[in-house]
Amino acid sequence: MLILRRRMSCLASVLRYSDYGEPANVIKMCKEQLEAPKDDNLLVKIVYAPINPADINTIQGKYPVKPEFPAVGGNECVAQVMELGSNVKSFSVGDIVLPLATGLGTWRTHAIYKENELIKVPKEVPLVEAATMSVNKCTAYRMIKDFVELKAGDTLIQNGANSAVGQDVIQLCKIWGINNVGIVRDRPEIDQLKEYLKELGATEILTEEQCRATKIFKEGKLPKPKLALNCVGGKNSLEMSKHMGQRGVMVTYGGMSREPVLVPTSALIFKDHEFKGFWMTRWKAEKGKSDEAIKMATDLFNFMKDGKLKAPKHELIPYENYKQAFENVLSLKGFAGAKVILDFSK
Amino acid sequence: MLILRRRMSCLASVLRYSDYGEPANVIKMCKEQLEAPKDDNLLVKIVYAPINPADINTIQGKYPVKPEFPAVGGNECVAQVMELGSNVKSFSVGDIVLPLATGLGTWRTHAIYKENELIKVPKEVPLVEAATMSVNKCTAYRMIKDFVELKAGDTLIQNGANSAVGQDVIQLCKIWGINNVGIVRDRPEIDQLKEYLKELGATEILTEEQCRATKIFKEGKLPKPKLALNCVGGKNSLEMSKHMGQRGVMVTYGGMSREPVLVPTSALIFKDHEFKGFWMTRWKAEKGKSDEAIKMATDLFNFMKDGKLKAPKHELIPYENYKQAFENVLSLKGFAGAKVILDFSK
Repeated sequence: MLILRRRMSCLASVLRYSDYGEPANVIKMCKEQLEAPKDDNLLVKIVYAPINPADINTIQGKYPVKPEFPAVGGNECVAQVMELGSNVKSFSVGDIVLPLATGLGTWRTHAIYKENELIKVPKEVPLVEAATMSVNKCTAYRMIKDFVELKAGDTLIQNGANSAVGQDVIQLCKIWGINNVGIVRDRPEIDQLKEYLKELGATEILTEEQCRATKIFKEGKLPKPKLALNCVGGKNSLEMSKHMGQRGVMVTYGGMSREPVLVPTSALIFKDHEFKGFWMTRWKAEKGKSDEAIKMATDLFNFMKDGKLKAPKHELIPYENYKQAFENVLSLKGFAGAKVILDFSK
Repeated sequence: MLILRRRMSCLASVLRYSDYGEPANVIKMCKEQLEAPKDDNLLVKIVYAPINPADINTIQGKYPVKPEFPAVGGNECVAQVMELGSNVKSFSVGDIVLPLATGLGTWRTHAIYKENELIKVPKEVPLVEAATMSVNKCTAYRMIKDFVELKAGDTLIQNGANSAVGQDVIQLCKIWGINNVGIVRDRPEIDQLKEYLKELGATEILTEEQCRATKIFKEGKLPKPKLALNCVGGKNSLEMSKHMGQRGVMVTYGGMSREPVLVPTSALIFKDHEFKGFWMTRWKAEKGKSDEAIKMATDLFNFMKDGKLKAPKHELIPYENYKQAFENVLSLKGFAGAKVILDFSK
């Protein structure tokens, strides 16, 4: 499928910006001459690179990550190794890889990355799954693992259950035997959405209205949630937190409603609830290519190989049509639609 | 000052209630015959017992602690040992003691308590200080110690700085060399209040308005707070949290505004702020007479002996006038006035 060409230098097409603004205005396709990789560097050919909401916000200058200009967009991808620096030990030409680090600028046909920024992807892992692993699936994995000890039979509750992360949370909970209750906004096609998410592995899907009134926890149909994952904020996070048991933890990783998280005083004092946040970018900056990071990648690769952890709904758009791609991303309401993936494979 | 009478039984006056309601309506003064203490029990004569807001809420049925009826009001006191059960090893008749446990019902002239519910108060500790130690001063101590590692030169910020706990926080911070910034509501006598709290040890006292605009943290006059203590909630807690540095923790122990704590999504995700609660009642139930509890009491006793940790403003009211005492407590707006302490010493 991929054509490998060994050569001493390479002319890359790069989606680059030198000022903050709307992506369609500030992103320009440029050519960049890449020299042969030295030392611990590798030359890779990018295959797929998603456009995530945080990438858009970074380009708009609304994200706390402030790149140096000129900057290349994108934070994740799947790529193939084309050429090795002389000190590279753990990769071979032809290997499929993905970046563990963030801020590498992945919207480009070719890139020079360092050995310790990459991890090898087993051949059996589908490429679109691999391309969408390092932001959303890693976020879902860490949030389930790092805040509360969840055993099979415990319960997790999340809003935005139909978001890309939400769908990964559902699949991982199913794999680990964790009851998971998802909250979504009401909509005309709510029945189809519920069916889709339940097939993915959701124990129960509730609309925001139903979340307010549900008695599944009070009546003991499910144990009270130990962990709540919040990407909405405002009243919805408040309603969700009311279901949490003693010492429940709510982890916020997004704020689609643009309203602050509302925390009842009594829940903090008498139920010992804790409210924390998670940011994959910080985790990666702190953990790098640690044993923990490798263990996570290995687990996720295995789940994807087995077909238990799938890519979100997506559309592949050739990178030359990047303006169209941005338009498709920005026309989505929140995380509702298909993930747009720039296709560099041709 | 106290008259000790050894006797085999004792007729106690007890402020008791058998139904939830307004304290002045449901609390009745009753007589109760106490038998001589057996085994690990002690007979004590109560000297002083404060009326705390939580005591009122418990009697009103608005508190999560639900006593068995008939119940005796009150959760803290200072008392003198009158008679020992045969197995009591660590106390002598005449010792001054206070309860480490909660829910013992302290509004009574005499009580039978267990050895492991009490701790001995050194003779040099003033009795009013001792009587008001186990709720407010212990709350202040634990909140400063248990959530963030604060070193001398670090900064803590708190609202309700003029509350009883707030004043204890100020004094403890001064003892430990921790910068402490207090927020209070604006009021006609704001200058006197600021002066009073600064004399107590506050580094800076700001009105809510001033808190919003202050640049003392941005301009580096003080390091950004690592810990925020919240007993107000609503917008005030939001404004306070904005000053916290990376990984700052806000601990909520009250909600005077009766509004939920507002937590900005971006602070959770990008600044890694954490929002937790503290409830002294739970801490005591879990820790009992542990080494930690004894270490805390010893520290506080030493500070009180040295005159570095004072009782809050208070008024002593003879226990027979308990209806007047409740009236005085309930006429206070929040924690603004003097703490009412029932006086059983006569």
